[in-house]
Amino acid sequence: MTKGRLEAFSDGVLAIIITIMVLEMKVPHGEDFAALQPLLPVFLSYVLSFIYVGIYWNNHHHLLKAAGRVTAGIMWANMHLLFWLSLFPFATGWMGENHFAPLPTAVYGVVLFLAAIAYYILQSLIVAQQGPGSKLAASIGSDMKGKLSPILYVAAVVLAYKLPRVACGIYVFVALMWLVPDRRIERVVEESKAED
Amino acid sequence: MTKGRLEAFSDGVLAIIITIMVLEMKVPHGEDFAALQPLLPVFLSYVLSFIYVGIYWNNHHHLLKAAGRVTAGIMWANMHLLFWLSLFPFATGWMGENHFAPLPTAVYGVVLFLAAIAYYILQSLIVAQQGPGSKLAASIGSDMKGKLSPILYVAAVVLAYKLPRVACGIYVFVALMWLVPDRRIERVVEESKAED
Amino acid sequence: MTKGRLEAFSDGVLAIIITIMVLEMKVPHGEDFAALQPLLPVFLSYVLSFIYVGIYWNNHHHLLKAAGRVTAGIMWANMHLLFWLSLFPFATGWMGENHFAPLPTAVYGVVLFLAAIAYYILQSLIVAQQGPGSKLAASIGSDMKGKLSPILYVAAVVLAYKLPRVACGIYVFVALMWLVPDRRIERVVEESKAED
Amino acid sequence: MTKGRLEAFSDGVLAIIITIMVLEMKVPHGEDFAALQPLLPVFLSYVLSFIYVGIYWNNHHHLLKAAGRVTAGIMWANMHLLFWLSLFPFATGWMGENHFAPLPTAVYGVVLFLAAIAYYILQSLIVAQQGPGSKLAASIGSDMKGKLSPILYVAAVVLAYKLPRVACGIYVFVALMWLVPDRRIERVVEESKAED
Repeated sequence: MTKGRLEAFSDGVLAIIITIMVLEMKVPHGEDFAALQPLLPVFLSYVLSFIYVGIYWNNHHHLLKAAGRVTAGIMWANMHLLFWLSLFPFATGWMGENHFAPLPTAVYGVVLFLAAIAYYILQSLIVAQQGPGSKLAASIGSDMKGKLSPILYVAAVVLAYKLPRVACGIYVFVALMWLVPDRRIERVVEESKAED
Repeated sequence: MTKGRLEAFSDGVLAIIITIMVLEMKVPHGEDFAALQPLLPVFLSYVLSFIYVGIYWNNHHHLLKAAGRVTAGIMWANMHLLFWLSLFPFATGWMGENHFAPLPTAVYGVVLFLAAIAYYILQSLIVAQQGPGSKLAASIGSDMKGKLSPILYVAAVVLAYKLPRVACGIYVFVALMWLVPDRRIERVVEESKAED
Repeated sequence: MTKGRLEAFSDGVLAIIITIMVLEMKVPHGEDFAALQPLLPVFLSYVLSFIYVGIYWNNHHHLLKAAGRVTAGIMWANMHLLFWLSLFPFATGWMGENHFAPLPTAVYGVVLFLAAIAYYILQSLIVAQQGPGSKLAASIGSDMKGKLSPILYVAAVVLAYKLPRVACGIYVFVALMWLVPDRRIERVVEESKAED
Repeated sequence: MTKGRLEAFSDGVLAIIITIMVLEMKVPHGEDFAALQPLLPVFLSYVLSFIYVGIYWNNHHHLLKAAGRVTAGIMWANMHLLFWLSLFPFATGWMGENHFAPLPTAVYGVVLFLAAIAYYILQSLIVAQQGPGSKLAASIGSDMKGKLSPILYVAAVVLAYKLPRVACGIYVFVALMWLVPDRRIERVVEESKAED
């Protein structure tokens, strides 16, 4: 299998996911501010998911650049990742429309968690292919963020039932953790872990 | 016609098909488990169709890699395949929303059957182009899976009226048959055929 | 402007158009044949439009392959073509849902007509760029089909008010005219013109 | 990061945005002119947004062609631009469905304004990368259009509350300003500025 076509297919799916998410923000029937107001949580959850898909697209790009031959295992691990990412529009729309209610907020975290696990599997397959001494293995290093994220998602899912706002805060924190340049955030994370 | 553009167009269509299928899983209005429950069959049928499109994408990729010049016949055989695949979202949504009722389950099988026939036509055209002694002809071999699948779909369509669950089981079986590595499953299939 | 990116963008838009058209075929609420029946005209109009988009994609591909540098004029002529093609899902859905009623059938013809004119403009720009003695100019020749199609669309639009079925027949005829290999159909068309 | 994949992803997102916008033009239930009439403003706003996305796609293409290495900053500035462009279908649909009512017309201008700012940020990053003496910096020059557009959008947003039609006229004017060949319109703009 050519890597180019796997990348092109993944790009296509990610481009569609990121764009159809906006369809969950239904055009309201009224024409005043009152008609826009209920859309605010939908908009906020859209912004969050847009950033998440952007992060996945970015990381996915770097990961596949490092990959060698595309084996059947890598191809299906990639499909598995795309599957969970394809549920983002649903999870985003449900959480937004219900104004970050407990269950939808928890389900959003479950989808984030499963996408993170799928990414971890894909990454592990490619690292195994490249070998422990490879550049890719070195650049991933201890993979602090990759290991911390699913733990934080699980925490958010558990907290969502009682404190959905806190769960949302965790989702925002994880997104920021991936967005801001690496070194600094990792130090912050390690320090905050040291404080706990 | 350049093969690259045929691949790119097919990839685009397949990426869109796989992603808009998820739109059939409508965001529910409630925010509790009761609101999620009726979505379970829609979700299951989505998982099944996602795997089928993944299999088609994978096989299509290998098939086109083997193709030489894209003739008008190959181009239209490819469009014909994309046509039946484009009905997956509809058939998937209808089967899921009606909780695997007889007719929707049969129609799902009909679409699977016609897509399989369309794939067979495309494959035959490319094999004919490459010649019987070609690498492609050798790699396809007796094409056990390719011949067995449409037969199983027909069986499922017939069974769907009385035993829709059994029909669904057949759809799952065919998908697994394509997913698991070749040799082993072919042996299993041949053995189970020998037992009948 | 790189031709590659214009092709990729056009391919993307055409792939999306051809795929979202199927969304107009809404999943019915019932689970029996009675629920499927009203979808038959929507399905038939979908098949027709799928073939039309396929023909456009095919011709567009050959046309752009012949193009040299992508000028601003060619870029916007291409956008203009994509614009009218983007109305196919709407026109197709409206005609299908209203069972080929006069006005929707006429509007479908208007969209086909304007897409044909847009294609003609794009083709003229590229031919002008290549010069009258170019390979492209020779391969287009007298462009019998390209000139006959808009005339037939106008005839269909006029007829649609009284005889919508005849108008549909004309749309099917034009599609077939482009589908079947060139020489034969041109002879048929010329003969049928001679008979009139 | 490879520039090619950033372009492909952006092309994908833009192709989807331009195509799903047409989904806001819902297929009407009637089959006569009366059913089509309320769609006219939706159609007009679709035409306007189609042209805007076309302009963005065109400019984006030229900008990225000039870019060198894709840094994290450029990648996220590009995502930021795609984000605001992804709100075009919503803003277009809302403005069209409400027949250019004050608030929807103002919101449309806000989205145009934020997309323009996002484009300006992306352009600034790439210019900074290329240096002030680069070809890109020279070709952008004083960037009259790029600076005038956001000012006109702000004016339109302010005017939309009292004179929504004038605001729409400004949106059309800005689109035309980008569409027609450069020199002439810049002179016109400068002259009309001199007259004020």
